[in-house]
Amino acid sequence: HSVTYDIDQKYKTPYHSRYLSFLKQAQEKNVIVAAAMTDPKGDRSKGPSAQDDPDLFTHVVERRPDGVVIRGAKAHQTGCVNSHWIVVMPTMRLQEADRDYAIVAAIPVTDKGLTFIYGRQSCDTRALENAGSDIDQGNAKYSGQEALIVIDDVFVPWDRVFMDGEVDFAAPLVDAFTTYHRRSYVCKTGVGDVLIGAAAAIAEMNGVAKASHVRDKLVEMAHLNETIYGAGIASSHESRPTRAGNFINDDVLANVCKHNVTRFPFKLARLAQDLAGGLVATLPSQHDFASDETGPILKRLLRGRSRNDTEARVRMLRLIENMTMGRNAVGYLTESLHGAGSPQAQRIQIERALKLEEKKGFAKTLAGVKE
Amino acid sequence: HSVTYDIDQKYKTPYHSRYLSFLKQAQEKNVIVAAAMTDPKGDRSKGPSAQDDPDLFTHVVERRPDGVVIRGAKAHQTGCVNSHWIVVMPTMRLQEADRDYAIVAAIPVTDKGLTFIYGRQSCDTRALENAGSDIDQGNAKYSGQEALIVIDDVFVPWDRVFMDGEVDFAAPLVDAFTTYHRRSYVCKTGVGDVLIGAAAAIAEMNGVAKASHVRDKLVEMAHLNETIYGAGIASSHESRPTRAGNFINDDVLANVCKHNVTRFPFKLARLAQDLAGGLVATLPSQHDFASDETGPILKRLLRGRSRNDTEARVRMLRLIENMTMGRNAVGYLTESLHGAGSPQAQRIQIERALKLEEKKGFAKTLAGVKE
Amino acid sequence: HSVTYDIDQKYKTPYHSRYLSFLKQAQEKNVIVAAAMTDPKGDRSKGPSAQDDPDLFTHVVERRPDGVVIRGAKAHQTGCVNSHWIVVMPTMRLQEADRDYAIVAAIPVTDKGLTFIYGRQSCDTRALENAGSDIDQGNAKYSGQEALIVIDDVFVPWDRVFMDGEVDFAAPLVDAFTTYHRRSYVCKTGVGDVLIGAAAAIAEMNGVAKASHVRDKLVEMAHLNETIYGAGIASSHESRPTRAGNFINDDVLANVCKHNVTRFPFKLARLAQDLAGGLVATLPSQHDFASDETGPILKRLLRGRSRNDTEARVRMLRLIENMTMGRNAVGYLTESLHGAGSPQAQRIQIERALKLEEKKGFAKTLAGVKE
Amino acid sequence: HSVTYDIDQKYKTPYHSRYLSFLKQAQEKNVIVAAAMTDPKGDRSKGPSAQDDPDLFTHVVERRPDGVVIRGAKAHQTGCVNSHWIVVMPTMRLQEADRDYAIVAAIPVTDKGLTFIYGRQSCDTRALENAGSDIDQGNAKYSGQEALIVIDDVFVPWDRVFMDGEVDFAAPLVDAFTTYHRRSYVCKTGVGDVLIGAAAAIAEMNGVAKASHVRDKLVEMAHLNETIYGAGIASSHESRPTRAGNFINDDVLANVCKHNVTRFPFKLARLAQDLAGGLVATLPSQHDFASDETGPILKRLLRGRSRNDTEARVRMLRLIENMTMGRNAVGYLTESLHGAGSPQAQRIQIERALKLEEKKGFAKTLAGVKE
Repeated sequence: HSVTYDIDQKYKTPYHSRYLSFLKQAQEKNVIVAAAMTDPKGDRSKGPSAQDDPDLFTHVVERRPDGVVIRGAKAHQTGCVNSHWIVVMPTMRLQEADRDYAIVAAIPVTDKGLTFIYGRQSCDTRALENAGSDIDQGNAKYSGQEALIVIDDVFVPWDRVFMDGEVDFAAPLVDAFTTYHRRSYVCKTGVGDVLIGAAAAIAEMNGVAKASHVRDKLVEMAHLNETIYGAGIASSHESRPTRAGNFINDDVLANVCKHNVTRFPFKLARLAQDLAGGLVATLPSQHDFASDETGPILKRLLRGRSRNDTEARVRMLRLIENMTMGRNAVGYLTESLHGAGSPQAQRIQIERALKLEEKKGFAKTLAGVKE
Repeated sequence: HSVTYDIDQKYKTPYHSRYLSFLKQAQEKNVIVAAAMTDPKGDRSKGPSAQDDPDLFTHVVERRPDGVVIRGAKAHQTGCVNSHWIVVMPTMRLQEADRDYAIVAAIPVTDKGLTFIYGRQSCDTRALENAGSDIDQGNAKYSGQEALIVIDDVFVPWDRVFMDGEVDFAAPLVDAFTTYHRRSYVCKTGVGDVLIGAAAAIAEMNGVAKASHVRDKLVEMAHLNETIYGAGIASSHESRPTRAGNFINDDVLANVCKHNVTRFPFKLARLAQDLAGGLVATLPSQHDFASDETGPILKRLLRGRSRNDTEARVRMLRLIENMTMGRNAVGYLTESLHGAGSPQAQRIQIERALKLEEKKGFAKTLAGVKE
Repeated sequence: HSVTYDIDQKYKTPYHSRYLSFLKQAQEKNVIVAAAMTDPKGDRSKGPSAQDDPDLFTHVVERRPDGVVIRGAKAHQTGCVNSHWIVVMPTMRLQEADRDYAIVAAIPVTDKGLTFIYGRQSCDTRALENAGSDIDQGNAKYSGQEALIVIDDVFVPWDRVFMDGEVDFAAPLVDAFTTYHRRSYVCKTGVGDVLIGAAAAIAEMNGVAKASHVRDKLVEMAHLNETIYGAGIASSHESRPTRAGNFINDDVLANVCKHNVTRFPFKLARLAQDLAGGLVATLPSQHDFASDETGPILKRLLRGRSRNDTEARVRMLRLIENMTMGRNAVGYLTESLHGAGSPQAQRIQIERALKLEEKKGFAKTLAGVKE
Repeated sequence: HSVTYDIDQKYKTPYHSRYLSFLKQAQEKNVIVAAAMTDPKGDRSKGPSAQDDPDLFTHVVERRPDGVVIRGAKAHQTGCVNSHWIVVMPTMRLQEADRDYAIVAAIPVTDKGLTFIYGRQSCDTRALENAGSDIDQGNAKYSGQEALIVIDDVFVPWDRVFMDGEVDFAAPLVDAFTTYHRRSYVCKTGVGDVLIGAAAAIAEMNGVAKASHVRDKLVEMAHLNETIYGAGIASSHESRPTRAGNFINDDVLANVCKHNVTRFPFKLARLAQDLAGGLVATLPSQHDFASDETGPILKRLLRGRSRNDTEARVRMLRLIENMTMGRNAVGYLTESLHGAGSPQAQRIQIERALKLEEKKGFAKTLAGVKE
């Protein structure tokens, strides 16, 4: 929104009205639009146009009277296979030589030129086991997935092109996008709430819910989870209007929020496994529980506090396995690390915003240092 | 505000209008009012009225037609000696037998019945050294202090009594007070900014400001500091109105804010000392720098990157010493731990607000556990 | 060794010579003997003989002239399916009423009365995919497994019984066993070395091996790993001879070693995933790399620094996935938490050995406190 | 020992026998010898001979038939004022141009050419208060101190010169010295034991010794303290003989030991202050306790669990203040950070010893990567 507005102000381009028109349609039809930013990148010491292979970053290969032809790829695209549209965007600051890489355009996921190559995930094939494996899947209702999107000469008409060649606006676009995106990682606190609930439930089933160390671990999990939440809410609270009229949240707090997301879910996962007990990693299959031969034995031996809760206990253990080592660990742990930028990306952004001269000034005033 | 309102609603008492009248005067005269809550407490396994010595908690010893007579003490009173008024309040949940301890009343600090016994602080006597010791003091402009206030039969007229005997409102008062107070500990991020500035300044004077590990440590300091800040801002953002019409901030986030304050300043202090170098603890006195005999030697030998910055470097090291081991460490470290409640007090409050049934419900839904 | 010796000393039993004879044979035949300690435990607030179901702890059901008949189960038995013998042992301190539960006996894994019910593991079925999935398995050479051993009326002749009814020696047995066992968790530092190597290798393939934050993360991984190692070595160094003549390592340092094992591998796993990049969780299957249709595209797009290292990079990412979320995460993370006792078990043992009176004495001497 | 031996082997010098002779005398007379290594260093981006001021590193200014004349300074010299001899040594790797800086020599502390300029410490002047302030000092028996030693043309006869100009042996000397020295920081665990004891004692006096969070914090303190201890013991256990016949401990574990010393005492200090309660920073002076006017009041109000323990409680709080903010905090916290090298110095050494090629080889073997 704000970047198309700013480009238009500088270059008298028509991007902002195109964007508003696309947005209006998307809202009317209630469609999901996936932001496709991350290019494969190849040799990370070189920029887009300096790579051996030009297609390691998405770029324009032809400009026609009615639109552009785009080639390249976007990696790590969470949720793209259940979206209606993707919007490709540059993934980094660009130089003059990278003009063809400064492209923002909306493409329907049904475009023939798009290929989605699905990523494997920990425990992915449990979802393909026969219908009776819903318990072993841990969470048979929800999961995520990532795909590599290959873009093979896709034509996009001008009314869906929102940047083309304005290399000086790649960095502002990336900055605005990551400011929103990093704050949005507060979503992991919802997953954290589930994991805290699972840890509390399994502790209860194990008959140890009242032990002081158990209660203390649940408090620690909540404290860390709410710490993430606080930075996210604060980032939104300190939003300010852009020139285009929309609001943008606070950059430092968005990075702080995301940076804590790269740290705390790993601590919550460890604490959840601690409260689960070793059975979280040694539990037999649900088919062994269902078997006439082994089922009765397992139900006797693997009961918790109450004789009747064996299945509930097994289900809760499988959920914790799923969230800490299985399919949802991909989203809760690895994506928490790398989504919207790896830890170092946040540190760079925090460093940029350190205002060290101001802070050194505070210290010098108090220390009585004159310059 | 809200508690006097709620008492009046239940007991038809006149506390709220008395409070508003006191507040109005305080604002008109621009006076500082110190909240005096913490009693000495004696044997912590017993409540106020069960102590061997009745004066270990502040209480009413006589009720007269024109007011009450109060006796007891308040400990750890930060800033009381530079306030105009103190308002005594109960420090904990009270029982029926503790009726005389349910007292809230405003007392001018000049009342003859008050005695202030000043606490010692690390490096307190540096402030008493001869006038030329401003550098060795580290921060010659600001410091804090704590005192024990002994209350020896102080008479308070009814118009300055805001609670007297309503034991059921002691707990709500403490809850509301700590909710505000714990969020207010976001103030330590201002001190944190000074310490980050001091660490950056000394790194520069040492000639190592560009070293990657130095830059990374400054980023970590800022990340931790802003994490505290985020929870504080978020707590205020999620305020809701009380029945009395004023707003109260979010309890969980206030506790999370304060709990991080009990942790992170110790990490910032360690990082600041790391960047300062060992000289922060081995530096000779400013009088040795001023001496004709040793001064020229010290100025030659203890210079940093530039030949002319020795005094500035010494001043900055003394500021860091002051904030991490000296007078201001009392406020930045110890008070961050214990002010507005020690760490365990926040954990108890976070545990009360865990909403475990709701969270277990989330987990059970996803795990397919039916009850 | 030492416990059979001590029982014999007290009760004139013949256990020690039986044990030595069994040990000699085991060494001569070079067999693997699995220590089977952990019972299913049922309701954790009750001891073995107080359970509703007597078989929740392993016990003697019949004594014959030529030996004993044993029934029960042992849970979480790492490596039992690739051992030749199991030796069952009590899992906790026993009371007089638990006499039948005080049984130590060696059973060959081929005994008809034993049933091994295999536990599922994260990504277990990848090992069952067609032969071409060696890359996707991450580590096609090694993995571990756990099983529940059901013991259904197994007869053991007297010469393989090493304790029968001496309940007062259950606690010393558990103490000696955990002292050895917790120190043995230093083995995880070998796994840690592999993970450090994998993280270094993938950083190099990604072209970022020289970045200061990458180097710093490798140092941190090594520092944590060697910290575990140090406590293990120290525990052995401070061994002392038992009355039986064998040596036993230091208890406190063994617990400290294991307790760090419950913490640091989770940190190493997070750092390894950080250095791996997001691809560790979004990488397509090796079959997509082998496919004529998608293979050439993937090899172009998912190359690292060099054009020719795509397969090596994929292999390294799969190894990191395997160790942090897949089959070997079970051993490196979950078993590090719970094997040889969950974190709280070590804290209890450390608390028992605190020697607080001695330490308080040191403090009182320095503070000038007289008693 | 080993370096003089190695120099002699290469250059046919007589250093080793001189050293042995000096050592023998030192042992016979039971004298304390301070190792004086750290030079002031000036501009840290330049080596000794490249400084503007040649005296920022200790060096030879004249060679006479009977010995050498030395000038310069040594900073941060812990314990030098209570030693009998100092031995100056180079502080870093030297270049050919630094020949005059490659000097190792023993100097009696009474040499007229030495000046000791004493450093200030947090709370240093409490030790100068009148004799009745022993309680306020926290630890009236022991403390440390640091001094800057100025070396102003000190003559040293040849029999006390152990290196002169062999620049290629400066780095081996520093390496050997830091390997011993960093391992020796295990001494801080003795201080840690005192602090654990003080924390346990004050918790008991406060009447909260049985609270689960209090017990857990003492366990955490001990766990951290013993973790340091483990690495130190292990470093010694893995010693190996040098060519000279003496033994040198393991370098990596020595650095790991010291690196944990830079981290954990700050955590122990925070936990000790947590258990102490806020009074550790707000306690009145012992003179207020002794005063006829305020003493009786303070003894009543600041009692702990028992009526008679007020003085003991005050003493214990002052000890904790002393160790976490006062004179002994200099040794327990700041010196733990910087003594024998600041944290980054250990990380550099750990990085040098990473054996990454070996570790990458492990990972490549398991991942099936062929080179």
